[in-house]
Amino acid sequence: MPSIFTKIINREIPAHIVAEDEQHIAFLDIMPLVKGHVLVVPKEEVDYIYDLDDELYASLHLFAKKVAKAQESVIKCTRIGVAVIGLEVPHVHIHLVPLRSMDDINFSRPKLQLEPSEMEEIASKIKLAFDQGN
Amino acid sequence: MPSIFTKIINREIPAHIVAEDEQHIAFLDIMPLVKGHVLVVPKEEVDYIYDLDDELYASLHLFAKKVAKAQESVIKCTRIGVAVIGLEVPHVHIHLVPLRSMDDINFSRPKLQLEPSEMEEIASKIKLAFDQGN
Repeated sequence: MPSIFTKIINREIPAHIVAEDEQHIAFLDIMPLVKGHVLVVPKEEVDYIYDLDDELYASLHLFAKKVAKAQESVIKCTRIGVAVIGLEVPHVHIHLVPLRSMDDINFSRPKLQLEPSEMEEIASKIKLAFDQGN
Repeated sequence: MPSIFTKIINREIPAHIVAEDEQHIAFLDIMPLVKGHVLVVPKEEVDYIYDLDDELYASLHLFAKKVAKAQESVIKCTRIGVAVIGLEVPHVHIHLVPLRSMDDINFSRPKLQLEPSEMEEIASKIKLAFDQGN
């Protein structure tokens, strides 16, 4: 069965997509730790990041770097934090989390629930910054 | 003033080093979240991971992948989790954390205090696995 992320890639379920190329996609986490929390995902459905071949693994990280630069430019934060956990959805995803404090990347804390309109506004800003940077 | 990690690289302060090449080093986190928690660091002293040039950024991640494979082979865990936060030491460091549950990578939880002999034993095992894998 395709992962929830494959369904997003195939446009079978909606998401707030902020960046995409042939091999990678990035969209807002639907349960964000903070505003502007993005997931970066390879289109190839692989469960574990360290099972990616070196080429896709490196290109995924380089893609994440461009997304992070776009986030930084439009989300108020000190820097972009990174996490790869992967115990829930079995499809590689890099969390990019705009940080102001250490606790912003504590996955045990309650997630935000933002209005769809606010999610869309945040996504549009990041997408615009990404497109302008590339 | 050189960072604490540069001092480790220069052997001015001790650490439990598990892997090293010309541009990168990996050693046990002195305040581990779980046993086998490793920091992967570029020898070049740059504060923020997304300020690394693309070449060093990609090679750092590829080095981290090899370290993670070594950890997996000797530390009992489900997979290796990844975090880059960087609000404390101003020198890029990737946390590689052997995970059994989500909470294993919660930086708010109390850190372990292991005996030096146990740290040394863990480091030796990871180092041996790293050397054998390369």
